[in-house]
Amino acid sequence: MTKINQIQSYLMVNEIDMAFISTPDNVFYFSQFKSDPHERLLGVMVFQENPPVLVCPKMEVPDAVASGWSFEVIGHLDTDKPFELIKEKVKLNSISVNNIAIEKSHLTVERLEALQQVFPQANFARLDEKINEMRVVKDAVEIEKMRQAAQLADFAVEIGVNEIAEGKTEMEILTAIEKAITEKGYKMSFDTMVLSGPKTASPHGTPGDRKIQKGDFILFDLGVEFEGYCSDITRTVAFGSVTDAQKEIYQLVRSANEKAIEAVKPGVRAMDIDKIARDVITEGGYGEDFPHRLGHGLGISVHEFPSVTGTNELKLKPGMVFTIEPGIYNSVAGVRIEDDVVVTENGVEVLTKYPKELILL
Amino acid sequence: MTKINQIQSYLMVNEIDMAFISTPDNVFYFSQFKSDPHERLLGVMVFQENPPVLVCPKMEVPDAVASGWSFEVIGHLDTDKPFELIKEKVKLNSISVNNIAIEKSHLTVERLEALQQVFPQANFARLDEKINEMRVVKDAVEIEKMRQAAQLADFAVEIGVNEIAEGKTEMEILTAIEKAITEKGYKMSFDTMVLSGPKTASPHGTPGDRKIQKGDFILFDLGVEFEGYCSDITRTVAFGSVTDAQKEIYQLVRSANEKAIEAVKPGVRAMDIDKIARDVITEGGYGEDFPHRLGHGLGISVHEFPSVTGTNELKLKPGMVFTIEPGIYNSVAGVRIEDDVVVTENGVEVLTKYPKELILL
Repeated sequence: MTKINQIQSYLMVNEIDMAFISTPDNVFYFSQFKSDPHERLLGVMVFQENPPVLVCPKMEVPDAVASGWSFEVIGHLDTDKPFELIKEKVKLNSISVNNIAIEKSHLTVERLEALQQVFPQANFARLDEKINEMRVVKDAVEIEKMRQAAQLADFAVEIGVNEIAEGKTEMEILTAIEKAITEKGYKMSFDTMVLSGPKTASPHGTPGDRKIQKGDFILFDLGVEFEGYCSDITRTVAFGSVTDAQKEIYQLVRSANEKAIEAVKPGVRAMDIDKIARDVITEGGYGEDFPHRLGHGLGISVHEFPSVTGTNELKLKPGMVFTIEPGIYNSVAGVRIEDDVVVTENGVEVLTKYPKELILL
Repeated sequence: MTKINQIQSYLMVNEIDMAFISTPDNVFYFSQFKSDPHERLLGVMVFQENPPVLVCPKMEVPDAVASGWSFEVIGHLDTDKPFELIKEKVKLNSISVNNIAIEKSHLTVERLEALQQVFPQANFARLDEKINEMRVVKDAVEIEKMRQAAQLADFAVEIGVNEIAEGKTEMEILTAIEKAITEKGYKMSFDTMVLSGPKTASPHGTPGDRKIQKGDFILFDLGVEFEGYCSDITRTVAFGSVTDAQKEIYQLVRSANEKAIEAVKPGVRAMDIDKIARDVITEGGYGEDFPHRLGHGLGISVHEFPSVTGTNELKLKPGMVFTIEPGIYNSVAGVRIEDDVVVTENGVEVLTKYPKELILL
């Protein structure tokens, strides 16, 4: 059954006439057409029986067709009212639209109101959970792409580590990494992070012109996209010298990362994995300095389902892919170690393979 | 009057109790805190009289404070329900919330429903137009930042043009551009586009490993961010040789670009500017090959108000900044020439200054 067929079955079972898929990453998932439409409307409409229709800016129609979408495409100009075009299409096919499934976590209030205007009788249901349920389990083809993406991330960290030298700036190191990846014909899956010294203590800091000094930790957080799928790795290395207090923090984070990974297998809950890592850090006395969830799902999006938090009761299933990225951030050091893992039939496969022992350069 | 004060006045005049500002670029506009919160909640709440409150992920609170936000910050953990925290805050300050202004073009249906749950009595009004009205006119400080951003874009094109050589790939040229910009400590404002030969005919194409050949047009579409403000430039150059048919297309696009720019001044409508450029291209016989609007507003966002389309009746005002980017895309050539312009008291200032005569390398 194709992915579109799965949505069609879902519509039939739930007596929904039309699904409107609007998240660009979900449009890619169902159509293989990757587009960042900015404020312009992009979407896939799926019906119970009629073939699906892709809506996109007119100038992107050739790209949509080239990417393999074999059904109809409605291209809209900036002067068109795209929801009117959708209405006409539906009318033409004599489809009665009383129940519409939308992505409530993505569709804006404005677009909901536009849909309500062209389908004033319609009820709106959530489609989010159905798509999450589909995307959260990756098939063999997707996992192979993610292996490739992770291998490229390992390579990117290696480039970064080799580039470290006293007096070099974070931006110089970052540039070397991105140059190496673009020269290979790939692109980063999000803004690369290279932080040094006290800046490593900001989980979401911005690389700048701070120069590497002896005694610094240097933190890399980066990912590479391979055929539409993302990787996401973090490694922290030491330069010049390292204090016992820094070492203690590093080893705690590493232990939290490794213990959590060891526990990954089908049937375990996401919250259990978070707890295992968090307990290691809390018992080490740094619970307050680990202010974020353990990890997040990974795939077409850098952040997707499942979220690995202390409250997510979701049971892990084979094919789920997520990050495990404990961290400790304080005035002594900022350390995070992040891997991408796949739940297998019996346990776990770790996609990112860059070494985790403390590297002192 | 500060920007926050302007919103407060608006709330008073319109009898609205709370504004919830959620677009990250608007949060930056009002708070100076630039953050990409992914799926986490980020927002600024403004009240008629009580001081405003910033809501952001807990781990970003230090960054928010460091960026100059001097009011209260509510940090939420991944396990918190942020809208419950907002409700508690409002309760604590004894603010009665019956009318809420939201950004309907940004807020998702899911978040609207979450707001409805904590404020079940509330009505929801649009805040979008008020913020657009404020952001669409840039002050002197903003325009100066955009001058700097445009100068960096000119520099980036220069790097790209110097890099062109037979057999080099689009990605190699792109890499050289991005390296030069990151080494200066800046970042691109969107994914850089370097397209060559037949690929220039796709307005939204993707750079790849196609090698530059004699007879190619090479199209650069790129921008650089300066202190939170974007530039956006397109230049098309020829390599090796150029046919008369290619020249004709180039000169038409250039003429459309220049005639539209000459017409920019206060009081003229956005649609008039679009028409002037479109008429040049239509009269030249290529109207069908110009499938997009003439331009878009530019500022903190790469695409913002005003949209320069054939239907936008908005009258231009001093301080508005937008792009003018006519293009022709067909099997002979793809050419686009894009500048960033500011409406001045009497006419126009062109921020991007890279030459526009046809360069044959």
